[in-house]
Amino acid sequence: MNLKPLGDRVIVKQDEAEETTAGGLILAHDAKEKPQTGVVLKVGEGKLDKDGNLVPVPVKEGDRVLYGKYGGTEVKVNGEEVMILRSEDIYAVFE
Amino acid sequence: MNLKPLGDRVIVKQDEAEETTAGGLILAHDAKEKPQTGVVLKVGEGKLDKDGNLVPVPVKEGDRVLYGKYGGTEVKVNGEEVMILRSEDIYAVFE
Amino acid sequence: MNLKPLGDRVIVKQDEAEETTAGGLILAHDAKEKPQTGVVLKVGEGKLDKDGNLVPVPVKEGDRVLYGKYGGTEVKVNGEEVMILRSEDIYAVFE
Amino acid sequence: MNLKPLGDRVIVKQDEAEETTAGGLILAHDAKEKPQTGVVLKVGEGKLDKDGNLVPVPVKEGDRVLYGKYGGTEVKVNGEEVMILRSEDIYAVFE
Amino acid sequence: MNLKPLGDRVIVKQDEAEETTAGGLILAHDAKEKPQTGVVLKVGEGKLDKDGNLVPVPVKEGDRVLYGKYGGTEVKVNGEEVMILRSEDIYAVFE
Amino acid sequence: MNLKPLGDRVIVKQDEAEETTAGGLILAHDAKEKPQTGVVLKVGEGKLDKDGNLVPVPVKEGDRVLYGKYGGTEVKVNGEEVMILRSEDIYAVFE
Amino acid sequence: MNLKPLGDRVIVKQDEAEETTAGGLILAHDAKEKPQTGVVLKVGEGKLDKDGNLVPVPVKEGDRVLYGKYGGTEVKVNGEEVMILRSEDIYAVFE
Repeated sequence: MNLKPLGDRVIVKQDEAEETTAGGLILAHDAKEKPQTGVVLKVGEGKLDKDGNLVPVPVKEGDRVLYGKYGGTEVKVNGEEVMILRSEDIYAVFE
Repeated sequence: MNLKPLGDRVIVKQDEAEETTAGGLILAHDAKEKPQTGVVLKVGEGKLDKDGNLVPVPVKEGDRVLYGKYGGTEVKVNGEEVMILRSEDIYAVFE
Repeated sequence: MNLKPLGDRVIVKQDEAEETTAGGLILAHDAKEKPQTGVVLKVGEGKLDKDGNLVPVPVKEGDRVLYGKYGGTEVKVNGEEVMILRSEDIYAVFE
Repeated sequence: MNLKPLGDRVIVKQDEAEETTAGGLILAHDAKEKPQTGVVLKVGEGKLDKDGNLVPVPVKEGDRVLYGKYGGTEVKVNGEEVMILRSEDIYAVFE
Repeated sequence: MNLKPLGDRVIVKQDEAEETTAGGLILAHDAKEKPQTGVVLKVGEGKLDKDGNLVPVPVKEGDRVLYGKYGGTEVKVNGEEVMILRSEDIYAVFE
Repeated sequence: MNLKPLGDRVIVKQDEAEETTAGGLILAHDAKEKPQTGVVLKVGEGKLDKDGNLVPVPVKEGDRVLYGKYGGTEVKVNGEEVMILRSEDIYAVFE
Repeated sequence: MNLKPLGDRVIVKQDEAEETTAGGLILAHDAKEKPQTGVVLKVGEGKLDKDGNLVPVPVKEGDRVLYGKYGGTEVKVNGEEVMILRSEDIYAVFE
């Protein structure tokens, strides 16, 4: 992946539908916005806070994460479909 | 539960309808947004304030809490249905 | 009441309609949002300001208050109907 | 008046329609929101600014003021109809 | 004029339609919000910034100004029709 | 031009349609909001930031600029039609 | 290109449709807002943060970038069609 996200953005490779089920996560039907799971491919350097200090992104490459699709953007790079998200759209990380 | 919430997010296991009644809490019918009760399973590390200091989440694992569903996201992990909330959506804790 | 409000939230026991009249307060008919009166049962620890200092709630247990219902949530705990409010929804306190 | 306003709120006794005219103020017909006049009965202690300093209310008891009704709440206490306003809804004071 | 504006508010005496033309200012027809001209009668003491310092109003009594009507309120005091504006609704001053 | 803009406002003399073309700038048809070009006639002193420091306007008299019309106000002063803009509505300057 | 963007704005030369495909990036069909690719021609000096420090733009001339069109403005200068964007509308840079 030759695409480097800027600021607090994160590039995620979305799980296939089957993987999601295998991984034990099924989304309940009445959720307002269906979150999804995937693996982090790239993270940006973080975002500056009001005092000019860099706040790093709270996930790292290889993390499997649960995220909301709302703020994200889907792109296909060299045939690979990925998601570009802001880090605040990532709700939780699988341990 | 192998899911770790990020920032000030909290994972809550929602009470069954019977539990809620047994626990002595019945929601009044004319509430704008019906709050619900549940038990805290996991808490995030907290949120950074404007000066970069970490503000911890005001509840801990095992707390039984009253929360608003509006900002939350329901997910089912390994067959267990849970709620991911921001800590500001938690109104009160049972003592 | 075994429910502890979080942050700047306050739990109020709403006056019965008769009490309100006896207490000398009748709401005018053309108010945008009808305020109500009640007695404070529990107060949260307060809210952090931008510098991380705790701003305590401006009312205490036992205070009789005038509040707007808009931001509040009604719940019934052990058969007792109460209101959970943010402290900024409390307009005035009876002396 | 046994009601003490909280924060930067102010309790105002609205002028009768005749008084307003006698006092020399008539509202123009094409105003977006008709302001009104009245006398300040009670003032709150003020509002905390971002640094935690108390900003006092810019009017005092007895001041005759011009205010916008939009943000206010009308209540009748012991038969006396009054208005509870935030201090920013007070536009000007009569000297 | 016995009315003192509060904060960063300004009282302006609106030019008559003929004056506006005489003064050389005609508003173009396709403006989103038609600005108007008038003379400043009274200015408030200014507004506190986030650090509690007073920011004075950038115009003074007697200035002829160009302003947007949107945020203003028209009142008639002792037969004189005036406009109460926030200072940010004043766009420019005639030199 | 005897009109002095306040704060971070800027007065711009809009290019004639022919000038725009001569100057080599043609606006693409599918732009959300058509920007325009003109010459800066007057600039305000700037805007105070949160710490009370003056942030000067990033253009000067005589600059030819590209700006968005959305936030501006058109006025005709002594027969000359000009635009009053906030400095953030100026996108770029011709070198 | 004789046009210098102000603040944190960036001028980008949008890729031709064929280039985008050749470059290996195809946008997925269900994206909320289709991002696009292009090459940075000019960058502004950056934006002042709340403390008055200049935050530089995170891309430089010659970078090939992925951006969202939403906040941008298309203009044609000397026959060349370009895009003026805020730097926060640039999601990622190709390495």
